[in-house]
Amino acid sequence: MAKNTRGGRPIRSSITRATPESVHVHGLDLTELLGKVNLGDFAFLELFKRLPDERESVLINAMLVSLVEHGVTPSVIAARMTIMGAPESLQGAVAAGLLGLGNTFVGTIEGAARVCQQELPGGGRHGVTPQDRLGDDEITALAAKIVDEHKAAGKPLAGIGHPVHKPVDPRAQRLFAVAAELGFDGSGPRLMTAISAVASERSGKILPVNVTGAIGALSATLGIPWNVARGLGVMARAVGLVGHLLEESENPIAGTIWSETEEEAVKP
Amino acid sequence: MAKNTRGGRPIRSSITRATPESVHVHGLDLTELLGKVNLGDFAFLELFKRLPDERESVLINAMLVSLVEHGVTPSVIAARMTIMGAPESLQGAVAAGLLGLGNTFVGTIEGAARVCQQELPGGGRHGVTPQDRLGDDEITALAAKIVDEHKAAGKPLAGIGHPVHKPVDPRAQRLFAVAAELGFDGSGPRLMTAISAVASERSGKILPVNVTGAIGALSATLGIPWNVARGLGVMARAVGLVGHLLEESENPIAGTIWSETEEEAVKP
Amino acid sequence: MAKNTRGGRPIRSSITRATPESVHVHGLDLTELLGKVNLGDFAFLELFKRLPDERESVLINAMLVSLVEHGVTPSVIAARMTIMGAPESLQGAVAAGLLGLGNTFVGTIEGAARVCQQELPGGGRHGVTPQDRLGDDEITALAAKIVDEHKAAGKPLAGIGHPVHKPVDPRAQRLFAVAAELGFDGSGPRLMTAISAVASERSGKILPVNVTGAIGALSATLGIPWNVARGLGVMARAVGLVGHLLEESENPIAGTIWSETEEEAVKP
Amino acid sequence: MAKNTRGGRPIRSSITRATPESVHVHGLDLTELLGKVNLGDFAFLELFKRLPDERESVLINAMLVSLVEHGVTPSVIAARMTIMGAPESLQGAVAAGLLGLGNTFVGTIEGAARVCQQELPGGGRHGVTPQDRLGDDEITALAAKIVDEHKAAGKPLAGIGHPVHKPVDPRAQRLFAVAAELGFDGSGPRLMTAISAVASERSGKILPVNVTGAIGALSATLGIPWNVARGLGVMARAVGLVGHLLEESENPIAGTIWSETEEEAVKP
Repeated sequence: MAKNTRGGRPIRSSITRATPESVHVHGLDLTELLGKVNLGDFAFLELFKRLPDERESVLINAMLVSLVEHGVTPSVIAARMTIMGAPESLQGAVAAGLLGLGNTFVGTIEGAARVCQQELPGGGRHGVTPQDRLGDDEITALAAKIVDEHKAAGKPLAGIGHPVHKPVDPRAQRLFAVAAELGFDGSGPRLMTAISAVASERSGKILPVNVTGAIGALSATLGIPWNVARGLGVMARAVGLVGHLLEESENPIAGTIWSETEEEAVKP
Repeated sequence: MAKNTRGGRPIRSSITRATPESVHVHGLDLTELLGKVNLGDFAFLELFKRLPDERESVLINAMLVSLVEHGVTPSVIAARMTIMGAPESLQGAVAAGLLGLGNTFVGTIEGAARVCQQELPGGGRHGVTPQDRLGDDEITALAAKIVDEHKAAGKPLAGIGHPVHKPVDPRAQRLFAVAAELGFDGSGPRLMTAISAVASERSGKILPVNVTGAIGALSATLGIPWNVARGLGVMARAVGLVGHLLEESENPIAGTIWSETEEEAVKP
Repeated sequence: MAKNTRGGRPIRSSITRATPESVHVHGLDLTELLGKVNLGDFAFLELFKRLPDERESVLINAMLVSLVEHGVTPSVIAARMTIMGAPESLQGAVAAGLLGLGNTFVGTIEGAARVCQQELPGGGRHGVTPQDRLGDDEITALAAKIVDEHKAAGKPLAGIGHPVHKPVDPRAQRLFAVAAELGFDGSGPRLMTAISAVASERSGKILPVNVTGAIGALSATLGIPWNVARGLGVMARAVGLVGHLLEESENPIAGTIWSETEEEAVKP
Repeated sequence: MAKNTRGGRPIRSSITRATPESVHVHGLDLTELLGKVNLGDFAFLELFKRLPDERESVLINAMLVSLVEHGVTPSVIAARMTIMGAPESLQGAVAAGLLGLGNTFVGTIEGAARVCQQELPGGGRHGVTPQDRLGDDEITALAAKIVDEHKAAGKPLAGIGHPVHKPVDPRAQRLFAVAAELGFDGSGPRLMTAISAVASERSGKILPVNVTGAIGALSATLGIPWNVARGLGVMARAVGLVGHLLEESENPIAGTIWSETEEEAVKP
């Protein structure tokens, strides 16, 4: 209950203004946007206070879409368990699922975005002037420095490695290709790819850039601050969790997960 | 802990399949979708197990976009309060915000969708054959019956009336226009408009179809079951809550809301 | 966003008053209570705005204690899944677990309390005057009426039946014994026992009063309104969930539940 | 989705065992405990896998009771906002309230417990042998070191200072007195008191040990690991939140908080 968390500042929010005839969001007439922009564009508007241009729209939607669905994750299991107990509250089941999107999973988006934003000139943002862009040798040297620092500190490399997708994570590869085709030249993808190469070589293991690593790198490209990058995962997984709750209502599996788990848990 | 909630059924989920080289969602190669579909399309895929066609894509995105941002709602206040206490957990603050999307607010989407799906031939779905479609007089009679039944039961009409947006809710009006321009002919919008007219006439008050009423009617048009329609609000508001949490990090107001509220609450 | 949910009323809370030298809760000096009352007593204070007398203290604590621990429930599985993903947020994992305490599980406390409070003279509260108390035949007749009504409506009997604890649920039996030993004479326990007997006879199955049925009956005895009775379960399970999260940190099982579930879910 | 979070370990939980006739918790027959132990004792059982002795029972209950009620906190505001939107889900409103018990508020319990456990011989636990206990001069020197280190690192001192309760927090003072009266001799309270004195002297401000600082120190006394100490706050506040939701149902204030906040937030 520290004093500095309280009072003093005026209560203001500049996101929405409503009159009887209209609703404006970040200065844009919501009514005029309906039918013209998609949900990913609106997420961009929430993050940047302006609509995306055409290629930003494609990229942010690709990033969000890649995060929606990861199969029967812990988050999905939590949501399905919750709807069994509280079928009156779909929102509660989605909330339960989102609560697991923390440091273990979505934190790797943050970590990868942070490395790119802190280590690259201009934070790795698209449009950094050519004279400031790092050459291939500089990127490789930077990657080696980062791998060494993480090893020395005993910290895992965020966004690198995957238990199933080897030698490459097809989603990460495709996200980087989408960004390149659109002409984005941020150096985040180059740095993450170099980190993957260095880490693989040193460890003798196959350590691809994974999908969260790619999202982190592209957050740097677009200029999404690393400390909000977690929000991309939260937005996207809310969509996916509703899909799983619909499937749970059609073909419930929570009861079986429960009974098998409980039976096993109390075995002598 | 009733027995029928447990065991027996096999644990199966048909949403996602992953191999080292690919991820498929409802049979579609996720990698190929990246860069081609937007987040609203993917929400449609989660709900219908197929991608939307072009006009379904426009409509579902318009519906979702209209729900993202409603200003400083109770849900937003809860999320902002939560991030002040637990800045380490953006996901927790979004979850706290979503938990308020229950019967009072998002429940009206459900209610409107339910009325349309239960009262209209073919559930009010687009493409009902012409001979089954209700004429204007039939719609008016149906609306009158529904208004009477709700009055007799002392139940509010879901999706009708708004404290600010009068005589029409511009978002509802625009959503219906978008659907009409796209050629959707479901009779949900006609029924909700007729209910609004009857209710206004009988009460002498201005009771427009509001945005949740419009979403409910259009859920019937697309064929989204009313008992999952709440999920549309949950998906959309997750996006909006991240935007408010970003603003809270830039310009915090939770402390002032807290101190003003607490001060007032303990006045003699 | 109905108008009647907004504004108008003054912001007041009469629970706590703080000065630099003291904190009062419902008029009692918190400092003086420390070391004298237990957590269950304080829960009683929150519900009744006064401290319990000695036997109320024993009963409310017994009720709460009986609800803390139910093994590896769906709620526990959700909490354990959540801490794996978000180890930074113990509060998030407890919240995820509590979200499943809805109509399926804790709702049965509500249902049993409601039946007792709505059907019995004086709401089944302890101390109803002798002339108002129902005799054994009246209780049996009332139980039969309730069983018939539920059957006709196709509704399950709340608080009756258990998959494991047969022919009696030892916790329910003991809770009723504790209340009787303390001299509580509310007729809720008699009614629930009669419902169990009638239901068992009619169905030919063994349908004991279960622990939530007992808590519901004793909520009536104490006068806890049925629509807050769910809160007893929430308080108690928060305690139990912390215990499970401690065990999860010492001996993690969430990862195995996840991998076994996912593996099985995608089998051809 | 790191590999090491998955699989491998057997699914086991040793907390509860149930047969048709009995439920055991950490080896104790739950039925026999009903009517004999209180909710705080059971919390102790969850944390220590054994029941508390008489004085441990008094102390843990005092600690928990002191945390239940802190007035109209951000957590309470979040819970009240949530029940307005989702009156069908009391559990959701409590969960929303608990989600704010993070690093800002309850984190100070953790911080204080951590300092005591890491800096004091035997972790500051009661019963440390006399020859290992620090003398007064040593405690003062240790406190000075801790204050200096925090200042050098720009980190706030956890559990020290309060905006209202000055020159002492009466709850902290009373908790330390309760522990002393019971004969607990852990040196956590001495260390926190010394830190408060040093910090006050150096800053020229009045910086008392606050209630979370006291709980942290006494967690060390009992031997509750600092990384679970947050759980004490979660358990206790679940109780308090139910009380506030009961008051909200009797005298709703969420609507006014909402309308006043929204009105102010959009002022030009």
